[in-house]
Amino acid sequence: MPSGSWNACTACKWIEIKKHNNRRLHFCFTFLVSVKLPNYAVMKLHGQNSIAGQLSALGHTHFQGINPQTGAPLEGDFAFATKNEIDHALTAAQEAFRTYRRTTPQQRADFLKSIGAQITALGATLIERAMAETGLPQARLEGERGRTVGQLNKFAETLLEGSWVQARIDTAQPDRQPVPKPDVRSMYMPLGPVAVFGASNFPLAFSVAGGDTASALAAGCPVIVKAHPSHPGTSELVVGAINAAAKETGIPAGVFSMVHGGAEESKYLVRHRELKAVGFTGSFRAGRTLFDLAAGRPEPIPVYAEMGSVNPVIILPDFLKTKGSELAPGLCGSITLGVGQFCTNPGLVLTAGKTGLPQFLEVLGKNIQETPPGTMLNSGIESAYLTGLDRLENTSGVTVVAKSQTGANPGQGAPAVLQVPAAAFLDDNSLQEEVFGPSSLVVTSQDADELYQVIGQLHGQLTATVYGTEKDFKNFPDLIDYLAQKAGRLLFGGFPTGVEVCDAMVHGGPYPATTDARSTSVGTAAIFRFVRPVAFQNFPETLLPEELKEDNPRRIWRMENGHWHLPE
Amino acid sequence: MPSGSWNACTACKWIEIKKHNNRRLHFCFTFLVSVKLPNYAVMKLHGQNSIAGQLSALGHTHFQGINPQTGAPLEGDFAFATKNEIDHALTAAQEAFRTYRRTTPQQRADFLKSIGAQITALGATLIERAMAETGLPQARLEGERGRTVGQLNKFAETLLEGSWVQARIDTAQPDRQPVPKPDVRSMYMPLGPVAVFGASNFPLAFSVAGGDTASALAAGCPVIVKAHPSHPGTSELVVGAINAAAKETGIPAGVFSMVHGGAEESKYLVRHRELKAVGFTGSFRAGRTLFDLAAGRPEPIPVYAEMGSVNPVIILPDFLKTKGSELAPGLCGSITLGVGQFCTNPGLVLTAGKTGLPQFLEVLGKNIQETPPGTMLNSGIESAYLTGLDRLENTSGVTVVAKSQTGANPGQGAPAVLQVPAAAFLDDNSLQEEVFGPSSLVVTSQDADELYQVIGQLHGQLTATVYGTEKDFKNFPDLIDYLAQKAGRLLFGGFPTGVEVCDAMVHGGPYPATTDARSTSVGTAAIFRFVRPVAFQNFPETLLPEELKEDNPRRIWRMENGHWHLPE
Repeated sequence: MPSGSWNACTACKWIEIKKHNNRRLHFCFTFLVSVKLPNYAVMKLHGQNSIAGQLSALGHTHFQGINPQTGAPLEGDFAFATKNEIDHALTAAQEAFRTYRRTTPQQRADFLKSIGAQITALGATLIERAMAETGLPQARLEGERGRTVGQLNKFAETLLEGSWVQARIDTAQPDRQPVPKPDVRSMYMPLGPVAVFGASNFPLAFSVAGGDTASALAAGCPVIVKAHPSHPGTSELVVGAINAAAKETGIPAGVFSMVHGGAEESKYLVRHRELKAVGFTGSFRAGRTLFDLAAGRPEPIPVYAEMGSVNPVIILPDFLKTKGSELAPGLCGSITLGVGQFCTNPGLVLTAGKTGLPQFLEVLGKNIQETPPGTMLNSGIESAYLTGLDRLENTSGVTVVAKSQTGANPGQGAPAVLQVPAAAFLDDNSLQEEVFGPSSLVVTSQDADELYQVIGQLHGQLTATVYGTEKDFKNFPDLIDYLAQKAGRLLFGGFPTGVEVCDAMVHGGPYPATTDARSTSVGTAAIFRFVRPVAFQNFPETLLPEELKEDNPRRIWRMENGHWHLPE
Repeated sequence: MPSGSWNACTACKWIEIKKHNNRRLHFCFTFLVSVKLPNYAVMKLHGQNSIAGQLSALGHTHFQGINPQTGAPLEGDFAFATKNEIDHALTAAQEAFRTYRRTTPQQRADFLKSIGAQITALGATLIERAMAETGLPQARLEGERGRTVGQLNKFAETLLEGSWVQARIDTAQPDRQPVPKPDVRSMYMPLGPVAVFGASNFPLAFSVAGGDTASALAAGCPVIVKAHPSHPGTSELVVGAINAAAKETGIPAGVFSMVHGGAEESKYLVRHRELKAVGFTGSFRAGRTLFDLAAGRPEPIPVYAEMGSVNPVIILPDFLKTKGSELAPGLCGSITLGVGQFCTNPGLVLTAGKTGLPQFLEVLGKNIQETPPGTMLNSGIESAYLTGLDRLENTSGVTVVAKSQTGANPGQGAPAVLQVPAAAFLDDNSLQEEVFGPSSLVVTSQDADELYQVIGQLHGQLTATVYGTEKDFKNFPDLIDYLAQKAGRLLFGGFPTGVEVCDAMVHGGPYPATTDARSTSVGTAAIFRFVRPVAFQNFPETLLPEELKEDNPRRIWRMENGHWHLPE
């Protein structure tokens, strides 16, 4: 990256950058634009925002990526976006929307697949930068890259199959009495520009080209990403991939922008009048703030904030008695996987009955003791984990079952498991607040009644997992349906961590797990977040969208006069 | 109705009623409960709230229905609900939800059909009371009753067909590398108790047993109706029909309650922690107030407020030139239908080009002049119409084309048509605010550019109607898609008034037409407003909902491993 004073170039105007160490430097806009990402033999990060395919860094607030393992700043100097830059991103998005919304399924599918290919082409450069910025191990990030590319490809398939638009056709009955029945045809169409807020814990799969971006682009909506400040370099590399894919597949550049920023920039983006929806994955506090801002706009817009949950794992009495100890090692693995930094981390274990409980706790405790601490994503998350754990430990009725016996280094989170009787849990709602990290609280109920009370008091959850024997389910016949009122996904055994990207997945749930339980942020049904139905009444064939034309040229499933049909 | 002091009955406690003339009367709770609605030979109205099937009038604020044609109060003394009564309604609803959500499609369909039959059985009693309370003519109300019953039956059909739950199934791949693929199955399940706010302009089809109630009950949600104070007697009669239907079909009484009230009672209801969604049809001010309340709750809930719009009718140049005058009489009919008291009333006519404009305006004006005024729904709507029209007339650039030549009596609204050049319209956004009643504003653009500017500045709309010739659409190739960004339903010719209840209907649209453009309040797709998806992972057959079991016992369309299937 250039440094010092540059005055020679006359091809563009100079950009002044204030570095974190307060040195000022100028560098040439055109020169940096011309740096092509796949050519990064040595990593060079421009640190700029990407506004409709153009790099731009007009702001004066700058920041660096930090290596959470060392606490040291990483290469690259990143500029917060200015209001003008955000305005430009939205204006370009609205302009691009007019053409992008009318692209064919093939064009949009090609774009999504090309993004995936460009991300793959970044190779080790991307993985290395993501490792440095997040402390996540190589294998995990390679897996996450596979998931990210796979999810782009899956949305491409959904587009090519085409039935997701839910075409509904009611044909005319001109002779109907007392009034003729009109011909009415409807389908889903895109909402408009969508803001996506990247998450710290999935630098690829829930960030710049993650699930929110993929589903919004698939729906036909332009996207403005607010990159997560924990991994700005990773974000920049993926932005390059998206811009390259847009160029390759002839998609207007305004369809995608990325801005860096903090709270002010985020608020400005969410309040922008051209914005039509928001996708977010992160903390409750930030999610609710964005929701409130969006609801308070002159024109309110939907906010799909996935804010995490404590994902209760329920162990019924007969199972606890007969197989509790057997379950404990796997449960420990799910609690500590990825240093517990998953929205689906099992932060709450609900047991009923006494028989088998000591054995279960003993094995779980032993496994937790033997699991070494791991580097957390950033210092903010690490300190919040320590504070949260401290709060739990000092709450009346809570006792520590076990903690990791290996001492945690700076930046690391140590696994822990705690225990509280149901009565104390029912008295203190703060005990069900998420402690993001590798810990879990076991809530012990004496009997079925108490367990039902605990479940009844639970907030909305992303998941709920049940372990029971045949005998248990005879004794708890309503349990599954009761849990279905609390969570977006129910698991029969297994562990909630690991969210399959498939058509049937629901990664969502009642508030405060999300701000909109009517949707999912993982799986192909995520596309429905960014569309609305539009009806066409008595339209001539030539003016109808392809999906609604009489002879069904897209060959999609449609509801025709009350019945679902695929043409012969 | 009993009057004076009743002291003989000891079977129940007396209810004190304060009548509008400040006389106090006591009457017997049990006695009135025992009055069966279909037996109303002489109309007797108890004036009470219906809380989970029980009549209750503990509040001290009372009101009467008013005949808008005479301004005189009507028989019946209606009691606002107390907070306690609203609490009881919600507690009962939440309790009933646990069983109602698990009723079979057949049970829910029987319930809906029975409501329709009970409404029909009310016969002339219902129509007469509705006529007295709304000033709407008999034929219109009989038609609306047919629509109301038809819509209940249509949701019953949707339930029996069953595919609306959108079952998605991804089967397991235990051998998949690097990790096994789980079995994931998802479907829509009901949200919970829903508040429905009745509308004044559809005392049957958008009130107590209207579209919102029908769709929420179909989805499996209990309903608490806040009856519109303009037609309390009509509401009471329909409540009796719903309660009778619940009893007949074995549906728990807590599934339905109705409360009377004003702003305070409405706010208390919307803020109630057991409430999970709101359906509303009415004014922008009231709709936005409810939306803000719901968004500001500790647990925000969705509000589906349909707040009306000005429903632009666009007449393109060649059509205006060749067929403008021909269109005018029909357009006048749509503007003045039902004294203009429809959310879909064409309040805005956008023309482009000069040729044919004077002739169009002349014929439209002549028809408006010849249309007599009509009684409006209530004095509030009448005075708002007069104020709104006055505001339009006194806005710079606006001229009156014509007004009805028959003088309006008190309570009546007189048809009017006004005109404004596009330039003045573009300067003053208040000109696109809805004036609820039989008037329309013609906005005259000189050319295509100006017309596009006017459309670009339009707020979100329920409908947009286009009149054009083949030549016009060659000159305006993007027009339809541009309008699709502004409205929920596009019409090629015809008139926006008259909203077909069918599978493909979209009665919704971008803000401020509604608070949630992602939905419709008319047609069977309205059911999606009150559900959320729930996924079941790795569940054994016995614990899965019927809709997700392997052999598809409900015989519904399901997405199985990416493809839609109906079992052989």
